[in-house]
Amino acid sequence: MRIEAKKWVYFFSEGNAGMTDLLGGKGAHLAEMANVGFPVPPGFVISTEACNEYYAAGEEFPPALWDQVLEALRRMEKETGKRFGDPRNPLLVSARSGGKVSMPGMMETVLNLGLNEEPVRGLGDVTGTERFAYDPYRRFIGMFGRTVLGIDSSHFEAVLEQFKLKAGARLDADLGSEDLKAIVSESKRLVKAETGKEFPDDPLEQLRLSIEAVFESWNGRRAINYRNFHKIPHDLGTAVSIMAMVFGNMGDDSGAGVAFTRDPATGDKTLYGEYLANAQGEDVVAGIRTPQKVELLQLEMPEVYQELVDISDRLETHYRDVQDIEFTVERGKLYILQTRTAKRTAKAAVKAAVDMVKEGLITKEEALKRIEPGELLYSLFPRFDEGAKEEARSQGDLLARGLNASPGAATGKAVFDADRAEQLGSRGESIILVRPETSAEDVHGMLVAAGILTARGGVTSHAAVVARGLGKPCVAGCEELRIDLERRYLTAGGRVIEENEEISIDGSTGEVFAGRIPTIVPKLSEESDLIALLGWADEVRRLGVWANADYPSDAARALEFGAEGIGLCRTEHMFFEEERLPIVQKMILSAAEATALQNELIRLQEEKDRRGKLEERLAEVQRRYDTSAAAADYRSALAELMRFQREDFKGIFRVMAGKPVVIRLVDPPLHEFLPSYERVLVETTEFRIRGNDPVKLAESENLLRAIESMRETNPMLGLRGCRLGLMFGDIYEMQVRAILTAACGLAKEGIDVRPKIMIPLVGHPNEMRVLREKVEKVAREVEAEMGTMVDYKIGVMIELPRAALTADEIAHYAEFFSFGTNDLTQTTFGFSRDDAEGKFLLQYVERGILPENPFQVLDRDGVGRLIKVAVELGRKTRPDIELGICGEHGGDPSSIHFCHQVGLDYVSCSPFRVPIARLAAAQAALSAGEG
Amino acid sequence: MRIEAKKWVYFFSEGNAGMTDLLGGKGAHLAEMANVGFPVPPGFVISTEACNEYYAAGEEFPPALWDQVLEALRRMEKETGKRFGDPRNPLLVSARSGGKVSMPGMMETVLNLGLNEEPVRGLGDVTGTERFAYDPYRRFIGMFGRTVLGIDSSHFEAVLEQFKLKAGARLDADLGSEDLKAIVSESKRLVKAETGKEFPDDPLEQLRLSIEAVFESWNGRRAINYRNFHKIPHDLGTAVSIMAMVFGNMGDDSGAGVAFTRDPATGDKTLYGEYLANAQGEDVVAGIRTPQKVELLQLEMPEVYQELVDISDRLETHYRDVQDIEFTVERGKLYILQTRTAKRTAKAAVKAAVDMVKEGLITKEEALKRIEPGELLYSLFPRFDEGAKEEARSQGDLLARGLNASPGAATGKAVFDADRAEQLGSRGESIILVRPETSAEDVHGMLVAAGILTARGGVTSHAAVVARGLGKPCVAGCEELRIDLERRYLTAGGRVIEENEEISIDGSTGEVFAGRIPTIVPKLSEESDLIALLGWADEVRRLGVWANADYPSDAARALEFGAEGIGLCRTEHMFFEEERLPIVQKMILSAAEATALQNELIRLQEEKDRRGKLEERLAEVQRRYDTSAAAADYRSALAELMRFQREDFKGIFRVMAGKPVVIRLVDPPLHEFLPSYERVLVETTEFRIRGNDPVKLAESENLLRAIESMRETNPMLGLRGCRLGLMFGDIYEMQVRAILTAACGLAKEGIDVRPKIMIPLVGHPNEMRVLREKVEKVAREVEAEMGTMVDYKIGVMIELPRAALTADEIAHYAEFFSFGTNDLTQTTFGFSRDDAEGKFLLQYVERGILPENPFQVLDRDGVGRLIKVAVELGRKTRPDIELGICGEHGGDPSSIHFCHQVGLDYVSCSPFRVPIARLAAAQAALSAGEG
Repeated sequence: MRIEAKKWVYFFSEGNAGMTDLLGGKGAHLAEMANVGFPVPPGFVISTEACNEYYAAGEEFPPALWDQVLEALRRMEKETGKRFGDPRNPLLVSARSGGKVSMPGMMETVLNLGLNEEPVRGLGDVTGTERFAYDPYRRFIGMFGRTVLGIDSSHFEAVLEQFKLKAGARLDADLGSEDLKAIVSESKRLVKAETGKEFPDDPLEQLRLSIEAVFESWNGRRAINYRNFHKIPHDLGTAVSIMAMVFGNMGDDSGAGVAFTRDPATGDKTLYGEYLANAQGEDVVAGIRTPQKVELLQLEMPEVYQELVDISDRLETHYRDVQDIEFTVERGKLYILQTRTAKRTAKAAVKAAVDMVKEGLITKEEALKRIEPGELLYSLFPRFDEGAKEEARSQGDLLARGLNASPGAATGKAVFDADRAEQLGSRGESIILVRPETSAEDVHGMLVAAGILTARGGVTSHAAVVARGLGKPCVAGCEELRIDLERRYLTAGGRVIEENEEISIDGSTGEVFAGRIPTIVPKLSEESDLIALLGWADEVRRLGVWANADYPSDAARALEFGAEGIGLCRTEHMFFEEERLPIVQKMILSAAEATALQNELIRLQEEKDRRGKLEERLAEVQRRYDTSAAAADYRSALAELMRFQREDFKGIFRVMAGKPVVIRLVDPPLHEFLPSYERVLVETTEFRIRGNDPVKLAESENLLRAIESMRETNPMLGLRGCRLGLMFGDIYEMQVRAILTAACGLAKEGIDVRPKIMIPLVGHPNEMRVLREKVEKVAREVEAEMGTMVDYKIGVMIELPRAALTADEIAHYAEFFSFGTNDLTQTTFGFSRDDAEGKFLLQYVERGILPENPFQVLDRDGVGRLIKVAVELGRKTRPDIELGICGEHGGDPSSIHFCHQVGLDYVSCSPFRVPIARLAAAQAALSAGEG
Repeated sequence: MRIEAKKWVYFFSEGNAGMTDLLGGKGAHLAEMANVGFPVPPGFVISTEACNEYYAAGEEFPPALWDQVLEALRRMEKETGKRFGDPRNPLLVSARSGGKVSMPGMMETVLNLGLNEEPVRGLGDVTGTERFAYDPYRRFIGMFGRTVLGIDSSHFEAVLEQFKLKAGARLDADLGSEDLKAIVSESKRLVKAETGKEFPDDPLEQLRLSIEAVFESWNGRRAINYRNFHKIPHDLGTAVSIMAMVFGNMGDDSGAGVAFTRDPATGDKTLYGEYLANAQGEDVVAGIRTPQKVELLQLEMPEVYQELVDISDRLETHYRDVQDIEFTVERGKLYILQTRTAKRTAKAAVKAAVDMVKEGLITKEEALKRIEPGELLYSLFPRFDEGAKEEARSQGDLLARGLNASPGAATGKAVFDADRAEQLGSRGESIILVRPETSAEDVHGMLVAAGILTARGGVTSHAAVVARGLGKPCVAGCEELRIDLERRYLTAGGRVIEENEEISIDGSTGEVFAGRIPTIVPKLSEESDLIALLGWADEVRRLGVWANADYPSDAARALEFGAEGIGLCRTEHMFFEEERLPIVQKMILSAAEATALQNELIRLQEEKDRRGKLEERLAEVQRRYDTSAAAADYRSALAELMRFQREDFKGIFRVMAGKPVVIRLVDPPLHEFLPSYERVLVETTEFRIRGNDPVKLAESENLLRAIESMRETNPMLGLRGCRLGLMFGDIYEMQVRAILTAACGLAKEGIDVRPKIMIPLVGHPNEMRVLREKVEKVAREVEAEMGTMVDYKIGVMIELPRAALTADEIAHYAEFFSFGTNDLTQTTFGFSRDDAEGKFLLQYVERGILPENPFQVLDRDGVGRLIKVAVELGRKTRPDIELGICGEHGGDPSSIHFCHQVGLDYVSCSPFRVPIARLAAAQAALSAGEG
């Protein structure tokens, strides 16, 4: 029995656009175009399977591959009437890489294959000019030398420069054929010197080595890095397209160019591109001469231009998307060498998609599917003028590069502490808060800053999270920055920036500049195409899209962007404002003592109720409570905060009239609101050593003791969330009272308020039971006092594994679940995001130990499994339970798909991400066949 | 239709021992005894249902209850021939509380019910002595006044004392009938004055109020606290037994006593108890006169004594367990008023159970089920002589009381830092290490200490965990302690203890004493009854019992206690020994730089292999690596540690020959091995302010920077466990090499070594995949070098929710799972045990928000669910996977039951808990019907 060899090689006529897995994008589209009748030079494709098999076999060609290549080559020879390596009329070919997913510039290509001293002469004869023949030969040796033989390209460039100098040639094209011949000889000598071997003259060996080099380039460092960054699997392999060369460098009736079927920057429907006469394709990219706009071709070669326009239209109609076309004109004849879906700006992508729907070219669904939701972000944030940025770079104003932690651009005075930032910021000055890293103590400065820059911390560090929440640009973890807080300056990129000097940060790219760069602020209301697209998205999506917003201004922005509710209002951010922080600190420092007295009173009262004695002890403790300074501080601080918070909530409810507002009761550990332990420790030590101010020393020591009694080894897993509500009941009671007083007040004004009170960090149903009773009790009291009722709901944040696992029991006490996927990711993985990202997580992703950063893209196997469990259990107990997500994943498209799949009711994300979420939710519905 | 009223009241003849739910323990056993024919006075029981219904109805008798009581009373009257409230021959009754679970002394009892001025005279007539009649009357008014009317008992005592003084009476019994009459009048006047109402004379009202008072006592503060402490549900309710009074105070042929069917301290088979002639039961307990030993009754009333012995035997045979009997002799007639299973010491419980098996009274299975495994702990740890402790207490040497964090007793010199502790301890002095709290830095001191005392931290704080691991006594969280580290003394209980003064700590009770208290050290080898019992346990248990041991001495003790393997050997404890810590610190401080250079070398080498260039860059980085001080430090520190660790492992393998040893690779964050950030911060500040030693300042600043770069916000969730192995590959490699070199070395000596290498803190299968490859590579190298092979296994600690959820994938790379339930509990609940226990967890348990401290008793609903998932998934992938638990729960009986139920192969616990685990494992098998 004869075993049929596997098919590794596909002639263009055997392929089509659907075969990108096997032939790569480039190969499949060349085949498609050839079959549809576009002018494509003849050729064939070596499949990605061959590449994978090559690696599987220890970097050896699989059996029969070479025979199939030779057979295909013979067929090409027949079609072109030329022969490969023929001394008289040689066939030249290119070998181009191309995987399923485009990785521009990451892999290798070899052009002009098939030349040695004999064919080159034949080529000269056929084309009638010796110079023409030696130009590709010279190029070929350099390209082959670099790509296949691994010789540094600078060596070949040096040879070229040396001869140009000798010949007094300014451009490559100024070199004569003798110069070119000499360059060829010198380049071959160079190859011998570098590799110890002669340059391979056998065209078939050249071809074979080139195919190997293209295969190898799949696993080049750059390609691997690119795939890691873009999350492209490493096992796809590359195809190799072998195509007959056509020559744009055969005189003024020849040339090469690239063209987009629509303007890739604006999306306007007009042929857009560049063309270089008498040049090969690589020259257009290399910038040896400045290419001309493709429209000018209309004047020079009107038929060719018209044909190009026609082909462009036909390609767009054929592919139903904007195309990026590579073409060559050889002696007045147009060839298309490549077509692919064009990379374009987000703005262009949206405009083109919307236009195409209007043109009847594609459906709304196709338009929706076509836009990468994440791209929208950049069209919604302020951004720097690109030209100005380029200029700044060229002037050496680029100071450093950090992590692009929160998109957008900002310019302002560098300020090194939050207090000063607040002082200047509240005067209306634009400032950039620059800190080694930020903590809760810096929030009052962040609130007024135009942007935030930190030297340490990852993209989910405190600075990054708060900045994204505030919709402010942030560059985080900018390790090159050296900040001297004492002398108030920073150094970076060899420059010193004093406080109050202006800097500019680009949160979308991570760049930090000295000086001011002008910004452009887009407005959604002006983006009519985007508005249309999002309108279509709203028609098909099933998921609701809510926003995380802590302030009325955030809420208003969220509404503008299309949010249907507030899914997370973090009350503690309100605590950090300047006039409140001292009150909050007073409350915290008195809480423990006051609460202990209260608890004793309650216990005694209960016992007295039961047993009818104890009046004396009760009276004594009551006396202690009544005269306790701590208790008095606690009560007055709570009363003051209650008034502040009531107004905060009124503001948000007013903006969100008719829509739900989920308010999370205070969550962070209380010590976050106190000065840092380390700072007070240093101060105390200073007072102690100096010994000249015993009063301040005592004060400092007292504060130190207070903070010490509260600080925690792992604050993330300590006394926070609902544990605060259970240990310091009055704080939650104050907040609930503020929420419901605000709500009742507005309800009386006839405003439709829909407060939803959310309890954070619940791990056991009993926590929820006790707190629900408490909330209901306060609600009854407030409703009685105010003489009105509001339709409030009580829910829970599911952010601990145990909450997910016992969601059926928790649902007895919760009308809604909101998945807090930030904390759920932390506890499921055992990762502290503050520590992990800087110390190992990014390396994990780079090394492929984790497929993604789970704080950016929801981990379906672990965290997702818990969410699924919780959804099922929650619905079992309470079929109409409302389910949402309010972690940062709520704004991530892949995570939104997951939320759709598991059947959540809504996602909630930062206001700026609302448009992204609307689109992603629509795509999720469409890909589930629900559109 | 007539609705039959619910039955609330059960005559003794209607009950039996199986009805404890309904009749309470006391009531059910009275009924049982009455029915079997023991001499029990007639009576009836009001059910626990009635009590619960009473509360449900807002503290009202349920319908028909009172009628049923009256009916039962009439029946009692018939049986006794007396009438309740009869002026001539009155029936007196007692009303006694008694729930399903015994709560001794926590609830109320009223005796001598049914007296007023008329029946008391009748009683006098019938008994022939007026004095006798007024004695119970006087007692009744006091008891009723206190119990039912809520009057402080001191008032009644004052009245009694006043009349005793007046009458010149030393004992109550010296009072004459006129005195008693006057006391009665005065007590009634007191009642009027205190309550504003006359003392209720109506016997039926007295009865009704007494029943209510007993119901109420179910929810008294003491009862609630007791139930919380003993984890008794609060919804059981109490029954009320109403029984005809018999009188031990009717002369010298009367009396009252308590007796145990065996000695409750030793378990010896001999009637043991106390007897007081001419007294009521309460007098025996109250200590008004010193009771005599029950044996003496043999001389005074031989028939009664013989009857008591017979009844004792019959009761034991009937109940098949040691009984605690309350009896009264009324004019030569013996009555049994109560029987219950006797409380006895652990030693007695074991001896009695083993003896009863030998006597043929119970089966081995019954003996095994009967012993509470936790009790064994106290019979295995050194303990203080109780008498000496009592004496110390009476001398005022009890300084304070903390948490009983690790059982056992220790005496030694108080020492306030680990260095000094080590210094003195290694000279053989017995020392107690006293610290505000401990950290990894203190371990070298803890290793040599006889005991550990801390002012802060819960029962799973560092001090507690390490102490339990070391089997050393520890009192933790002793908040009353004030430690002045600078001046080196502590204050507590108003005393000052200077360094080097002796103190004694009792880790089983949490007591701290000044001075030396003699200890008693039990030996398992001397506990023949326990050995027998554990032998039976081994016959029936299915679970293996292994031990957690870090040192050969621990391992030896574990073997002595019956461990079948080492389930957790924590390699990092070895790092803390004095001579090693500097090497470890050198390794840590050089790790980052050295590893970065290594990584660059590896990357370059890979790229060179692929592309055949880069020699120069590679050479340059190699040069940098070769000349790097950090790299040199790193290499030399690792080499030194490798030699230490190899010897450590040899020691353990040798002890454990033929048995498995699970070695966990290094787990804690590396900064735990460095000095504390705060300390170095203070030092640096001091050097800076003093400004007189720039060299030391610079050194201090450097160290501070190094520590700062490593410290973490939440170290529990940071760079630790397998993340260290992935980021600093050489450290794990060093450990694996040490393990396998040791193993191969011993294998060559013919010793059967079974190393199991365990990777901690895995959350993603890829972590395990990469590390498994690494371990296997090192193993191949070592085996080749040593020319021998060992049968090693590679496994994983399942201690993160994500690991449990993806256990099927992880099992591809792991031959065993060991559940690290400490960390799994932390991450599942989101509790940092260092913070939670002190700040809220204990309150949670007290308030019933959590049923137990989940760090002590495994949480089945959350953590347990994850374990079940992991067991199922793990076995799906690898049916023969070995499953164990090595968290602290491995030594907790309830958790061991769970481990049995979910089908683990073994539990591993601290050596001292091995006997407990053997017994608990047997009980688990028996209760699953596998015995």
